[in-house]
Amino acid sequence: MRAVECGPVVPSSGAFRPVSPESVRLTGHGFWADRRALNASGILPHAHAWLDRMGWTQNFRDPAHHTGREFTDSEIYKLLEAYCWDDADHSAEIGTLTALVAEAQDKDGYLGTAHGRDGQHARWSDPNFGHELYCLGHLIQAGVAAARTGKAPGLLQVARRAADHVVRIDPGICGHPEIETALVELYRVTGDVRYLEQAAAFVDRRGHRTLPEHEFGWTYFLDDTPVRDATSLRGHAVRALYLAAGAVDVAVETGDTELLAAVVRQFDHTLARRTYLTGGMGSRHQDESFGDDFVLPPDRAYSETCAGVATIMLAHRLLLATGDVRYGDIVERILYNVVATAIADDGRAFFYAHTLHQRTPTEFVPADRAQLRFGGGPRAPFFEVSCCLPNVARLLASLPAYLVTSSAEGVQLHQYASMDVTAGGLTLAVRTRYPDDGDVAIEVRRADQGERVLTLRIPAWAAGATVDGLPVEPGTAVRVRRDFIRGDVVRLHLPVTPRWTRPDPRIDAVRGCVAVEAGPLVMCVESLDARQNLDHLMVDASEAPGAAVVKGRFADPTDARWPYRSNGDDCAHGTPTVVPLVPYHRWARRGPATMRVWLPVMPT
Amino acid sequence: MRAVECGPVVPSSGAFRPVSPESVRLTGHGFWADRRALNASGILPHAHAWLDRMGWTQNFRDPAHHTGREFTDSEIYKLLEAYCWDDADHSAEIGTLTALVAEAQDKDGYLGTAHGRDGQHARWSDPNFGHELYCLGHLIQAGVAAARTGKAPGLLQVARRAADHVVRIDPGICGHPEIETALVELYRVTGDVRYLEQAAAFVDRRGHRTLPEHEFGWTYFLDDTPVRDATSLRGHAVRALYLAAGAVDVAVETGDTELLAAVVRQFDHTLARRTYLTGGMGSRHQDESFGDDFVLPPDRAYSETCAGVATIMLAHRLLLATGDVRYGDIVERILYNVVATAIADDGRAFFYAHTLHQRTPTEFVPADRAQLRFGGGPRAPFFEVSCCLPNVARLLASLPAYLVTSSAEGVQLHQYASMDVTAGGLTLAVRTRYPDDGDVAIEVRRADQGERVLTLRIPAWAAGATVDGLPVEPGTAVRVRRDFIRGDVVRLHLPVTPRWTRPDPRIDAVRGCVAVEAGPLVMCVESLDARQNLDHLMVDASEAPGAAVVKGRFADPTDARWPYRSNGDDCAHGTPTVVPLVPYHRWARRGPATMRVWLPVMPT
Repeated sequence: MRAVECGPVVPSSGAFRPVSPESVRLTGHGFWADRRALNASGILPHAHAWLDRMGWTQNFRDPAHHTGREFTDSEIYKLLEAYCWDDADHSAEIGTLTALVAEAQDKDGYLGTAHGRDGQHARWSDPNFGHELYCLGHLIQAGVAAARTGKAPGLLQVARRAADHVVRIDPGICGHPEIETALVELYRVTGDVRYLEQAAAFVDRRGHRTLPEHEFGWTYFLDDTPVRDATSLRGHAVRALYLAAGAVDVAVETGDTELLAAVVRQFDHTLARRTYLTGGMGSRHQDESFGDDFVLPPDRAYSETCAGVATIMLAHRLLLATGDVRYGDIVERILYNVVATAIADDGRAFFYAHTLHQRTPTEFVPADRAQLRFGGGPRAPFFEVSCCLPNVARLLASLPAYLVTSSAEGVQLHQYASMDVTAGGLTLAVRTRYPDDGDVAIEVRRADQGERVLTLRIPAWAAGATVDGLPVEPGTAVRVRRDFIRGDVVRLHLPVTPRWTRPDPRIDAVRGCVAVEAGPLVMCVESLDARQNLDHLMVDASEAPGAAVVKGRFADPTDARWPYRSNGDDCAHGTPTVVPLVPYHRWARRGPATMRVWLPVMPT
Repeated sequence: MRAVECGPVVPSSGAFRPVSPESVRLTGHGFWADRRALNASGILPHAHAWLDRMGWTQNFRDPAHHTGREFTDSEIYKLLEAYCWDDADHSAEIGTLTALVAEAQDKDGYLGTAHGRDGQHARWSDPNFGHELYCLGHLIQAGVAAARTGKAPGLLQVARRAADHVVRIDPGICGHPEIETALVELYRVTGDVRYLEQAAAFVDRRGHRTLPEHEFGWTYFLDDTPVRDATSLRGHAVRALYLAAGAVDVAVETGDTELLAAVVRQFDHTLARRTYLTGGMGSRHQDESFGDDFVLPPDRAYSETCAGVATIMLAHRLLLATGDVRYGDIVERILYNVVATAIADDGRAFFYAHTLHQRTPTEFVPADRAQLRFGGGPRAPFFEVSCCLPNVARLLASLPAYLVTSSAEGVQLHQYASMDVTAGGLTLAVRTRYPDDGDVAIEVRRADQGERVLTLRIPAWAAGATVDGLPVEPGTAVRVRRDFIRGDVVRLHLPVTPRWTRPDPRIDAVRGCVAVEAGPLVMCVESLDARQNLDHLMVDASEAPGAAVVKGRFADPTDARWPYRSNGDDCAHGTPTVVPLVPYHRWARRGPATMRVWLPVMPT
């Protein structure tokens, strides 16, 4: 294990190298610094308390009286992983949970509170939904975090014993991918090639319809087509993304360029045809799945929080492997529009699914009730299925690893925040008020002798971006190659003024609409500001959107008996008005409201 | 029981009276005559064979080895009901199934093969999904059919004993409404007011969240709001529609004008805001449910066949009660665009759900496999859940009852087909090639002395309609009052030339699109005719659509990495072309194809 490289993903090779979280320090206040602080003080305690309240921690002590679904163990593991990555001191919780988990491990290395005992289903009896390897994958990721941070002596051993058990038993594939990426990371930590081989076997076995036939169909489980042959991500969104991440990990470690290219192809297809403007993925509530190409209804958007986290996991692995900075664009988009949206201001409620068009006012959800229905609806304290909250927690805890990379020639900044960075032979003080402001000042505090390259991702949306006053091309990596000296300042300017965004005409659900983006932020209209029914809003897109407003007109709709007619005009009648915009990540925080991102355009 | 009135719905009072199926004879060939013949020779034997193959008939002999879901009994009852209504001779099948059902009845009158025995769930133990009253409702409707047609001596007694059991036990409400409408009809047949009181109790008990809390929520079960207070149909579509039908039946028999008005209000709201152009209802695959107002995505339309049948049931009851002929419009729309679409040409496969935008070519489904996933997908021979097929079968079998009504003053024609009608003091020969042709010739063969009123429904879409050459208002009832004599001919002309149809601008999913309708038929474009990717089609709506074609242009889409952009034009580029239209009910009959009803309009 290289001491200077850390974080959740440390490939053996690749265009960019991960840096250790110590090498990246978010400073003081800032968009992400504040949210990491909220994670430590609000989200993590909230999640922990709910896992206790639901009885899912107790399952480790008393599996005979197991409560909750088959995969509840994984939430404890993700919580543990988050505690390890986080900067704050969670040593007491880490100690408690590590002991809890270790004691629940069977002598043969198996660990799982929902299977194998009297009255429970036998181990490995339900490949489709048993979630056993899924849970063990999260255990292993927690063990990796424990090893790399040194915060939980013993947890790596628990993880290794479980992994050894998996290697020994070699069960069939799991209905929910996760074990693959975990096993590769365990190989990376331990050097034990059996873990890599097992992960590769799981990836290769998938796609041949070997899972028992199920009403949901093989596509849901990604068992319809081998990874090497598939053209798109499809089926259950989180399953698809975790599998793809694991396939990238396998490909990088085995030098399998064909497999890597297959995932690149699928991810590119998915970004181009199956992704919401927010970066969210999953357009079907039913089965929490991808829909067909260009089926992206904003109202019934599923865009599960976990899918957002999983997309970041995948995109980051592709970034490290290929050096294509454009993968940072989707990471940024999801961070600001899915992750930031997901969490309540006090960290004690969250969205499971993310609509882009709320038609009925959001409800109030009591603070003490877990929601039965885990898709859709307002931010809630907890859900019967609560994969999303500890997933966000572990992402926020390990966030520094996603911001910066290094290479032999220098350092690459992928996300912009006020931070102190030491990597690639440079020590930098990055200062910015991004995303409120598009100016990023990068001051060199120290530099190795000789030329270094400072690489800056210019987002594809940033038309008009400049570096030190010179225009730079959006959607590219700007490489500033210099013999840097202390005191040098590189100034990046990203225009964050609001702009209209128009959808591909093949996305039927938003034809005739525009959206507004400002920098990386998707904007929206909320009924609290509009004070009229948002269903009747049409906007005048002939001028640029104002700093925080759109000009529009609330139409007087005719309420006909039948909503389809042969004649009549399409002109908007009604009151011209100025409608404030708010960042989409701020919606549903001021009380019940309707909301829409995509705004119908007034016919000319 | 009045011998001259028959069919599935015979209210004690109302603006229009049902006529017996003998009073309405579809003649020779014609759109519906042919489909009723297919029902007798194809659909019914196919359904019966599959019910046997699936083991659901065997459940009545051997419930200890019950196969299939809790509601499979209902399919046998619906089949029996269909056999009774149908004109052809099914006496052997009726005898077999009646004996089967009678022998399975318990001594206390309970009948249900899925509950109550060793190894089964106890009776009444699962109000949400036990479907026990649901099944008994269908049994009762079969008993009513048997009594009114005289074709199954003994079945009425079986139904009465079951109904007596229900009255005696008085269980809580059933998660799936159906018992309500059935009990009222049994009251109408027997005069036993306890059945009406029980039905009224079931209706009034609903909406108070007395069902156990379930992940699907109370709205799904229509248990969130009392019928009298609700403003729209909502939740699971078939449940909502069956409940509404039952509420109308109760209201008519008890003279409860408030309850009737509540259902009228809900149905009107649903027609105006939650119904597809095809008349289909249900816009969510998840939970087979209604969506919010104006959420009507054509691609993910659910529009379950059973919901179409149930809407006809409800609309017909409202027609009889109120005398508002416009309810015949929705019946017509569903008949031609949901029912006609549902069934394969040989009667041996059917759609469960009805998409209006097929994006990937329809698959081929083997003739010998029941589909696990019962929503979406191509016409299939059978599904694990197969409520739709026997529902269509009983509708087609009893179809004459939906075509014509009578009153003290005369006869009302609600649907147009070649038929001989004796009702309301008139004997008519109705001849037409509708819907291919809009001319309907109504010749008087015999007439009672004195003035009679012949009432004709003029569909709301029929701008330009004439009666005997005189313009008549669409969406109205034209009353031809005359001292009719033999040989009189009344000529109705309904313009069936293709017309553009534009959606309410609040239906986001089809903004910027038009559809084509021709008479009662919704038209579509199928890829087999277009020979290009339908996703790239844009139509020129500046001229009327041609007799069977639209002029369009297939755009050359740019395949950008990200489908949302800040600039660029919306103009269509690409090849001008003429694209044939086919009736929507004919789609997916010539091999794998993509299809769309709503066509993007070229920007001007």
